Amino acid sequence: MAKNIKLNMSRRIRRTPYTNMVEKHGVSDFTVVNHMLLPKGYKKSVEDDYWHLSKDVQIWDVSCQRQVQISGPDAAKLVQKLTPRSLEKMEIGKCFYIPILNESAGMINDPVILKLDDDMFWISIADSDILLWAKGYSIGLNLDVDIIEPDVYPLAIQGPKSEDLMISVFGDEIKKIKFFNYKVMDFMGTKQVIARSGYSKQDGFEIYFKTHENFFDSVEMGEKLWNTLWDAGQKYNVSPGCPNLIDRIEGGLMSYGNDFTNKNNPLECNLDKYCKPDAKHEFIGKEALQSIRQNGVKQKIRGIIFDGDPCSGIGQPLPVLSKDSKKIGQITSGIFSPRINKNIGLSMILKDYWEIGENIIVQMLNGEKKSGTITTLPFPQ
Amino acid sequence: MAKNIKLNMSRRIRRTPYTNMVEKHGVSDFTVVNHMLLPKGYKKSVEDDYWHLSKDVQIWDVSCQRQVQISGPDAAKLVQKLTPRSLEKMEIGKCFYIPILNESAGMINDPVILKLDDDMFWISIADSDILLWAKGYSIGLNLDVDIIEPDVYPLAIQGPKSEDLMISVFGDEIKKIKFFNYKVMDFMGTKQVIARSGYSKQDGFEIYFKTHENFFDSVEMGEKLWNTLWDAGQKYNVSPGCPNLIDRIEGGLMSYGNDFTNKNNPLECNLDKYCKPDAKHEFIGKEALQSIRQNGVKQKIRGIIFDGDPCSGIGQPLPVLSKDSKKIGQITSGIFSPRINKNIGLSMILKDYWEIGENIIVQMLNGEKKSGTITTLPFPQ
Repeated sequence: MAKNIKLNMSRRIRRTPYTNMVEKHGVSDFTVVNHMLLPKGYKKSVEDDYWHLSKDVQIWDVSCQRQVQISGPDAAKLVQKLTPRSLEKMEIGKCFYIPILNESAGMINDPVILKLDDDMFWISIADSDILLWAKGYSIGLNLDVDIIEPDVYPLAIQGPKSEDLMISVFGDEIKKIKFFNYKVMDFMGTKQVIARSGYSKQDGFEIYFKTHENFFDSVEMGEKLWNTLWDAGQKYNVSPGCPNLIDRIEGGLMSYGNDFTNKNNPLECNLDKYCKPDAKHEFIGKEALQSIRQNGVKQKIRGIIFDGDPCSGIGQPLPVLSKDSKKIGQITSGIFSPRINKNIGLSMILKDYWEIGENIIVQMLNGEKKSGTITTLPFPQ
Repeated sequence: MAKNIKLNMSRRIRRTPYTNMVEKHGVSDFTVVNHMLLPKGYKKSVEDDYWHLSKDVQIWDVSCQRQVQISGPDAAKLVQKLTPRSLEKMEIGKCFYIPILNESAGMINDPVILKLDDDMFWISIADSDILLWAKGYSIGLNLDVDIIEPDVYPLAIQGPKSEDLMISVFGDEIKKIKFFNYKVMDFMGTKQVIARSGYSKQDGFEIYFKTHENFFDSVEMGEKLWNTLWDAGQKYNVSPGCPNLIDRIEGGLMSYGNDFTNKNNPLECNLDKYCKPDAKHEFIGKEALQSIRQNGVKQKIRGIIFDGDPCSGIGQPLPVLSKDSKKIGQITSGIFSPRINKNIGLSMILKDYWEIGENIIVQMLNGEKKSGTITTLPFPQ
């Protein structure tokens, strides 16, 4: 039933400089992230879109990855306090994935941070108002920082042909951008931050497209960028696209708000390597995280492969049960994988059941029970 | 085109304890507020719904009005720092509408705060993560407070027959609840906060329904509440409903994110009475607000009545022009009013043009220009 529910449009659910183009290309579904539209489907099925993404190249409007720009004398001090990951050796030109925790070590976001200068950072956020968090904290501490949401609207180019497409627009310098690095490049006389990154397991780039304050200018500029990439992409079979649920789950890419929330700590999310026990720096949640580590975590995110009719994507969590019918988790992202030829999903799983190979039961929304197995992340290819 | 866009469902767009009921009653549109579903339409047209709301009684799932619960020794100190409105004389049992400002006096929310005890408050928020703001600030200041989102899912009963319906379920005590006051009342052995308030210009109540941590219990409890009210409402011609755009605009009720954003200050939003120039207490944005007051505001929210075919609700802002074609504002909420028999809307309007009676031009999305007039808020009846 939920499948046919319309999204009511209003200014509060913000459009992007690319929304006109996205509509022109036949967007069929949106979701809302950071008070902004994120396309979630076009004319193709999720499965056709998946095969296209794994072979060709796509343009994604991911403007909803809003930037929290932190600058000023205390900027480096502040961003370090926001995360357990050490930023001490981070160089300009790098992108770091960072967990952001509250005082209880609950995850409140899992953004990518870009170091633009020694005193200037962009935090490219998942769906929560980290600007309010960082600003409230900095006001309380009386730090000397300036925190704004700049007019930056990321556009992602994803898929194995993305490098060829990007070279044809931005030149050979594109080849020199390594994974999770960025370079500042020219587009029609403007300086743009371009990173090799993206929310797929394919090669790809994210253009952190900076426009002007006046929204109508933004639209004009955004459409120029979109059309330039679209025209150049014709020889690479370019298509409009969006984060693909099959590709994302197969790749073990988690989604904040779906696969974990502020009720989860980073160790439950397998983010141990960004939370070193010997971290020297102070950060919000440090004490709580140490205590969680000492006591050991009670659940962790795992992959699940399960039987049943091909699942077209779940709108709400599916309970996961042990063989003796105890609730041991819930699938929070799930869909049929044509490559594995089974349904796949992500779930927090209680400790006694999280070993790879464990047999479990998935309870569908209609109550039917399906056999399943705990597996590694990313899923075996 | 935007009219037929589906909302992609996922756990991140949280369901409420009433979502099953809302779906059962034929919800057709949702929007997303505070990462949660808000119904925006059922089978009836907005106009039919408007007439029903003005004569009978409706049940609204407004769970998305999430509560930020602030408790502890420094709770009163913290909430006072969050708003220019003095809370000094606020008594337990009261609900206050409060602007919340950032350091530049930009509006970051316009919630209602409930004083539950001298050291315990609920802030019932519009669409921004005020929990992160309040918590970040309190950690920076090292305040002794506990800040959580409790398992409270507001259900609104709105319309002229709402008092009768509420009496039939909760008893005659309901009559004693004055506007923007609450009482704690019993529902099946649980204690529930019930306020006389709501996002319509009709009489109405909001039940701040508190459930249990386990979501399945919440659903069971929520459905018991919904069904109890539904059954009792049969004799009052009860209907499922939601905030009605015609009623809201006619009543001059503003919407955060639509009619004002963090780029606007409270004086632009006609909230002067909550921002007294002689406020003794310290609050975030005080200095900036004083400076804005001294320099005078450049624009204010006004009502606009305009010509043209009946407008069915706007999905994006419509430019407002002066007679000599200067851009002087934009309609951010607009729809046809069957009572006024004209289109009506809300817009920030530049100072030189904001006088009541000023003739203006509204530019429709297709470029057509329609004559209009600045009017008072609420709209004349």
